[in-house]
Amino acid sequence: MKKPMYYLVVATTLDGFIARSPGQISTDWTSPEDKVHLHKMEDKADVLLLASKSYNLVKERLKKFNCIVLTRKVNGIKEESKFLTYINPAKSDLDEYIRKKLYKKVCVLGGRVAYNFVLEKGFIDEIYLTIEPVVFGDGIGFFNKEVPLKHFNLVSAKKLNANGSLLLHYKRNE
Amino acid sequence: MKKPMYYLVVATTLDGFIARSPGQISTDWTSPEDKVHLHKMEDKADVLLLASKSYNLVKERLKKFNCIVLTRKVNGIKEESKFLTYINPAKSDLDEYIRKKLYKKVCVLGGRVAYNFVLEKGFIDEIYLTIEPVVFGDGIGFFNKEVPLKHFNLVSAKKLNANGSLLLHYKRNE
Repeated sequence: MKKPMYYLVVATTLDGFIARSPGQISTDWTSPEDKVHLHKMEDKADVLLLASKSYNLVKERLKKFNCIVLTRKVNGIKEESKFLTYINPAKSDLDEYIRKKLYKKVCVLGGRVAYNFVLEKGFIDEIYLTIEPVVFGDGIGFFNKEVPLKHFNLVSAKKLNANGSLLLHYKRNE
Repeated sequence: MKKPMYYLVVATTLDGFIARSPGQISTDWTSPEDKVHLHKMEDKADVLLLASKSYNLVKERLKKFNCIVLTRKVNGIKEESKFLTYINPAKSDLDEYIRKKLYKKVCVLGGRVAYNFVLEKGFIDEIYLTIEPVVFGDGIGFFNKEVPLKHFNLVSAKKLNANGSLLLHYKRNE
């Protein structure tokens, strides 16, 4: 069986931050064009992967999507509804669950807990990185777990608007 | 008199890091094409601005350039040689010194101490950001001083090589 394809979708400032503080959602500084892109990325996925803090901030918008939410509050896997599954990744095998459900495309939406998890596991096949032309100075980084240097290839770079919000698409360099 | 123009030159991983650990110099993971760009940026400056830790790592290469080195080890301003001046920015006015010397173009080479200093002071006019298509997971960020949200405009984006090292040029949005 073919390995599910994991793609990570993230918007950062030009100095590499995804939020100013923990639990904040990146909507006040990302561009309308990035939001259009984000919704396309969600639409083409079979399932969305989120950490629980991020999920709670956007769950209204995502209630018609298959969602897997990473949390330490369940003991393994809990299928909460037709669309929503909670998984404790320390106590169950996320990738095995995704294969069993026959999901082919997994869209990793964040926040940092979810990004770190797929980075550490080596699951990331592609990254869609939007760089907004703003500077925070300090904030929450994209990842915070050191890993062996990983190489990617830039597949495309697209300017989304006149200010220069930039959408970069990377694929893992095998 | 016209304000000196400060431009910041920085290479980051796609996850926003400038080094894996403090005091490391970014030569083992940046591309040859970025090094060519860096040397061009140095050549067109009237003076280079560095923090002392970074300066000590590259001083051999920079001995024919006008350099201002930020350090707490001098009490004000110390003109060490024709090319090299040490400045303690807590005890003397860097910008005033630069104006007095009639330097028009200041190239800020790093590390984070120098980047933070010009960010906090609001000196940054332009940013040349090279994004190398690699992931560290964790490391040293670009800045670490929170500032009011600053907006920039993307002037140009240039693919430097086949892997997709990307050179982005931003100007401050007045």
